[in-house]
Amino acid sequence: MTHQAAIALGQSLRVLATDPADAAALVAASVDIGAPDDVAALRRFAKGCDVVTFDHEHVPGEHIRTLAAEGVTVYPSADALRYAQDKLAMRQRLTALGLPVPTWRRVESAAEVAEFADQVGWPVVLKAVRGGYDGRGVWVVADAAQAAQRLAAQATVGGEVLAEQRVPLRRELAVQLARSPFGQVAVYPVVETVQANGVCVEVLAPAPDLPEDAALEITQLAIRLATELDVVGMLAVELFDTPDGILVNELAMRPHNSGHWTIEGARTSQFEQHLRAVLDYPLGACELTAPAVVMANLLAPATESGQSLDERLHHMFAAEPGVKVHLYGKQPRPGRKIGHLTALGDDLATVRAQAARAVAILREGTHGDD
Amino acid sequence: MTHQAAIALGQSLRVLATDPADAAALVAASVDIGAPDDVAALRRFAKGCDVVTFDHEHVPGEHIRTLAAEGVTVYPSADALRYAQDKLAMRQRLTALGLPVPTWRRVESAAEVAEFADQVGWPVVLKAVRGGYDGRGVWVVADAAQAAQRLAAQATVGGEVLAEQRVPLRRELAVQLARSPFGQVAVYPVVETVQANGVCVEVLAPAPDLPEDAALEITQLAIRLATELDVVGMLAVELFDTPDGILVNELAMRPHNSGHWTIEGARTSQFEQHLRAVLDYPLGACELTAPAVVMANLLAPATESGQSLDERLHHMFAAEPGVKVHLYGKQPRPGRKIGHLTALGDDLATVRAQAARAVAILREGTHGDD
Repeated sequence: MTHQAAIALGQSLRVLATDPADAAALVAASVDIGAPDDVAALRRFAKGCDVVTFDHEHVPGEHIRTLAAEGVTVYPSADALRYAQDKLAMRQRLTALGLPVPTWRRVESAAEVAEFADQVGWPVVLKAVRGGYDGRGVWVVADAAQAAQRLAAQATVGGEVLAEQRVPLRRELAVQLARSPFGQVAVYPVVETVQANGVCVEVLAPAPDLPEDAALEITQLAIRLATELDVVGMLAVELFDTPDGILVNELAMRPHNSGHWTIEGARTSQFEQHLRAVLDYPLGACELTAPAVVMANLLAPATESGQSLDERLHHMFAAEPGVKVHLYGKQPRPGRKIGHLTALGDDLATVRAQAARAVAILREGTHGDD
Repeated sequence: MTHQAAIALGQSLRVLATDPADAAALVAASVDIGAPDDVAALRRFAKGCDVVTFDHEHVPGEHIRTLAAEGVTVYPSADALRYAQDKLAMRQRLTALGLPVPTWRRVESAAEVAEFADQVGWPVVLKAVRGGYDGRGVWVVADAAQAAQRLAAQATVGGEVLAEQRVPLRRELAVQLARSPFGQVAVYPVVETVQANGVCVEVLAPAPDLPEDAALEITQLAIRLATELDVVGMLAVELFDTPDGILVNELAMRPHNSGHWTIEGARTSQFEQHLRAVLDYPLGACELTAPAVVMANLLAPATESGQSLDERLHHMFAAEPGVKVHLYGKQPRPGRKIGHLTALGDDLATVRAQAARAVAILREGTHGDD
């Protein structure tokens, strides 16, 4: 999707991919094969690039620092990206900044988790400090025994663990923004993200029934965050909407799934915006292109229906000629995000129903009962 | 731009380009180098393609027939594409169908042109039967002497010539549609195309002040044309709006410059629609995404300003954050189309002024007086 944006801007996108079958490697004109944690591969790749940026968090900070020391322009910087790679560093920094986060602490033993639960109550949320995404690396533990089990499992992979209060959730929100090296910031409207089993299934833009002062507060929080962390490029801030106010959940410093709605739903897509930011162009307009935008993730079904994905796509197009689809060229392992779709219109309920029908047809075919 | 659409649909686009520096070859993941009139190159290229289609008219019909006879699926077919390659065949066919065209005849001598002028008056429009585009291959001759000169020049390249009445023009219009192999047709709103020196500089969507019955008549004419000619893929119909009614000027059977506004301005872009049509997917919605859409071509200036295109792009983005730009990666020879931009909004005058400012900055820089 970044390549699509690069084409319009007349930019030559070069991709470093682990595997030639990676989604980006399938479509880009210039592809290097190499691991994101191999400094030699990174160095080879960076040669001749004006700017190096990321679409995931797996490039180790020390390698980014090495490249930067050798004169490569890398955005976001290692110092900024750290807060999207390391949940402990992020929680510490946000707490120091006085920004609202769930109550948290680092835990090394079940006793520490139990101590923490005395303060915030069971169940407690445990999180891997590094490497979690899409519901992976997040566990809800009901008691000290479950906590002990989880910590033991994490210990085998050498992963640090964070405990967090399980906050009383009204819903989850997110906000996207871009920041340029110069410090220009452009913020998109706040959206609602709908999760199922820890995975985002739907994004509603703008977030329905969000009071204007709450939207303004979130926007200001996001701008402050981006500025304090010196983010360059896209920043996605995932938020908990609780009865006591807004709390920051996670950060991503790249075009993020919670911002895919911007491709058709905003005047400037997050992919174009990310490129504009890291290339230090003035940022594009963030306004909505329709009163109601719904992005729905397409998760591969647990069992394939009798119809192929291509057949199901025919049926979906026939049923919903206004729905836009984005397929990623990924093998459809059960539960894997293999694409997303976007519906737009004047009325959220109508648009949401359209998106739901389209997802059902793409997952189950025309005879599914999803 | 077709590659951008192919990425979203999860399709692998393979490009046959004459030169590795061709716009499409710069961005596609899979590129074959070969001439469009080299049947061996075409055959090599077509191997393994599900469908072969075109973004220009330079593949000779006999080669398309050869591929088709060898089992390659080619859309549009040679029989259809002929009417976009050969203006004489097109005029004959449209006349036979009773569709409105300017008065025309084939001419081989200045005497025949003069004879034609006796009927329709001077000046007369002469057109190369094959190979003309963007104002090339079209000449307005004031008298028999000029006609003789032009015919002599055409004779040296062996090109047939058509004479046409110079119609009293109110403005030029165009309509885009897509047709699938099954025969489904999806028609976009009628647009106005604004020309300067025979080159389209601006497209206004929808065509302002077009009465509903005229729009309906044009839509029906376009559907009839596509059906009669058995077009598969996009069809662009360029029209003259005259005091005596609508006349068909030119046809293009591919995503066409007069339809670039659809990328942001219609729910389905003409590039996605072309792919959906030639791949026999149900077609996408053609509705406008805003009340007023203006596409402006970016023609390379005769003399470069002191600022590079990249600097000018910075200034344009700063001045017009809502304008979308598409650069083609082409060398900026004077007058060459090196990109286009799109502005959208509620009010045509505002949007048109926005587009004009953006073009001026991109052509002349911030100190230009364009």
